Amino acid sequence: MRKVAIVGGGATCCGKREASWRDLVQEAGKNTFENVPDISPKDVDSLFVGAAEPERFVFQSNVAPMVAEYLGITPRKVLARTELACASGQAAIRYAWACIATGLSDVAVVLGVEKMFMPDMAEGQSNFICLADREWDQVNGLTAPPLFAMTAQRHMFEYGTTKEQMALVSVKNHHYSSMNPLAQFQKEVTVEDVLKSVVIAPPLRLLDCSGFTDGAAGVIMVPAEDSSKYTDTPMYIIGTGQANIGNVVNNLGSLTEWVPLRMAVQEALKTANITLDKIDLAELHDCFTISEIMEYEAFGWCEKGKGGKFIEEEQSYIGGKIAANPRGGLLGCGHPLGATSLLQAVDILQQFRGEVPKGRYVEGAETAIAHNLSGYANVHSIMVYSR
Amino acid sequence: MRKVAIVGGGATCCGKREASWRDLVQEAGKNTFENVPDISPKDVDSLFVGAAEPERFVFQSNVAPMVAEYLGITPRKVLARTELACASGQAAIRYAWACIATGLSDVAVVLGVEKMFMPDMAEGQSNFICLADREWDQVNGLTAPPLFAMTAQRHMFEYGTTKEQMALVSVKNHHYSSMNPLAQFQKEVTVEDVLKSVVIAPPLRLLDCSGFTDGAAGVIMVPAEDSSKYTDTPMYIIGTGQANIGNVVNNLGSLTEWVPLRMAVQEALKTANITLDKIDLAELHDCFTISEIMEYEAFGWCEKGKGGKFIEEEQSYIGGKIAANPRGGLLGCGHPLGATSLLQAVDILQQFRGEVPKGRYVEGAETAIAHNLSGYANVHSIMVYSR
Repeated sequence: MRKVAIVGGGATCCGKREASWRDLVQEAGKNTFENVPDISPKDVDSLFVGAAEPERFVFQSNVAPMVAEYLGITPRKVLARTELACASGQAAIRYAWACIATGLSDVAVVLGVEKMFMPDMAEGQSNFICLADREWDQVNGLTAPPLFAMTAQRHMFEYGTTKEQMALVSVKNHHYSSMNPLAQFQKEVTVEDVLKSVVIAPPLRLLDCSGFTDGAAGVIMVPAEDSSKYTDTPMYIIGTGQANIGNVVNNLGSLTEWVPLRMAVQEALKTANITLDKIDLAELHDCFTISEIMEYEAFGWCEKGKGGKFIEEEQSYIGGKIAANPRGGLLGCGHPLGATSLLQAVDILQQFRGEVPKGRYVEGAETAIAHNLSGYANVHSIMVYSR
Repeated sequence: MRKVAIVGGGATCCGKREASWRDLVQEAGKNTFENVPDISPKDVDSLFVGAAEPERFVFQSNVAPMVAEYLGITPRKVLARTELACASGQAAIRYAWACIATGLSDVAVVLGVEKMFMPDMAEGQSNFICLADREWDQVNGLTAPPLFAMTAQRHMFEYGTTKEQMALVSVKNHHYSSMNPLAQFQKEVTVEDVLKSVVIAPPLRLLDCSGFTDGAAGVIMVPAEDSSKYTDTPMYIIGTGQANIGNVVNNLGSLTEWVPLRMAVQEALKTANITLDKIDLAELHDCFTISEIMEYEAFGWCEKGKGGKFIEEEQSYIGGKIAANPRGGLLGCGHPLGATSLLQAVDILQQFRGEVPKGRYVEGAETAIAHNLSGYANVHSIMVYSR
């Protein structure tokens, strides 16, 4: 089995873009290829596209060959799109990893993309709920904000977590995204800003929630043994973990204990053959502020129930116990569903290369994880990257 | 790299089903697990779902964890849905193959499903076109029938292929599907029936076209070294090939020469390390009668332009040069997009096991291929299976 390396990547600016789905693909593709001058589209034998809901947002299915055409790639080995809601991009990364590891592919592009802003945003929001089970959660109006609000309520009740502590996650991530030119929200926020922002689903307010976002990003993967042909600073995939329990909220067993995340963490560390303390940088799936607090606990950076305290003590800032979301997270950068995992990968690569601004640079980071959850936290997926 | 085996599979009846999307998943899942009594859902570590457009047909995205829940599977290794239009199921099979080959998964289920009949079939048809490029082919009304009609027209012009020869493909495939209790159309048709059926897009008539279909099917895959624990009659995956050129019709270069199919055939035979004459049985993607004629030529069973003559001489019947579509093909069995590749795999398994009716049994078959195309024949994908 071959070891796999990412030799370059590129992304679009994220936000409410005056750009079509096609424009986003081309912009991310251009930036990706420009980052690896010695690979041209004709060298690429495989393409993996992560996209969650182009069928609903842009009336476009069968997106994989479309992306191939827009990038000038003619895949002669593997071509497919993966969909796993908010973790669609990571499913694509894993598929590419497996194909290179087996020898099925030698040069692969993974591209994630989502165009979420529609002319009619009522339609956009109703499309978004398409990822919930139609016969259970959809019909009960259980969209993502009320689900994570229930989670937050329960976490507050069980562990005394406060709204202020949740707000601090948003403050940290906006602090980092203010230094990220690709971020949707490039402005610092204060605890007061968060607590005064409009209520979405109590206790979650606007600044507790990640945004609707347009964006795309891509990486180029090769067998590790070939990486020196293309770059002196490859990023290796050294482990991966994923787990799933059910699909609807009532499968979760507990709102405040994400069992599949615990399983995915164990598997990721096991396959990477490392312990938690070796991780220098973590891109966590902070779709809501409460999510990141739960993730501190599930990874084991703090005890169960102490996630609020953990951010209060600034343990998830650079220099703390774990540098969490130095990119700015989903809260600061936005969450273009299928693109998010690729945006994380590209930023980690830039961290390893020392290409990010000083204020959000995790100096000397050797190992990083990228985490995504999808659905109602029923699926968790983790990649472990190293220099 | 581990060799991979399919140890069992099951399918639903196909057609206009009085069943929900969920019902189809559960019916296929039940039949799949009943076929491998020594594997229960809790033994399965990974699930791969092939589905083309559930977002449009049943307003349901994020289908992979939903299928997991319905089948009682809690994937702790890999979970994803793949989408590649009419080849979505084969993309899922390939992903599962790669994950087992690398050692990432030890017991995987691959399930393909599509519920295409909607209460309002005008909406169903408009949804179907979602797989064409919105800015090019969609806006010009170039749905699948006119595209394949152009292909047929051109093939008739260049090679003298006749409507009668195309009709003979439909006659053969309906002959075999008349012996397939899972088929959508279990009735023989004559050349006259085809030539008198309603015109869809000249020269294609209703019986030249595969149908809108509800259906689902699944297989269970394990490393070949483990297969004897579960069955005496495993089916091995011995090769695979896929190729893509562009996405829209004008990328194809030629309407009558499917270059990516030629490439995929070469790759499939190379990875399987066999020559064409070793293939005893071929499940071909006969979405339209002209497709199967083009496939005889592209595989190399006959010369370019002689596909019409080939069916006229009954060379693609059992006992001829190649037993093509003894299942009944898409023309006879229907084409539930994401399920089709799995339906092909399950039928080939039953062929190898001698479980099909005598009239459509390819006795002694050792090696088979399953072929799918997607989009406007821009993508071709092939699996090579052996006993």
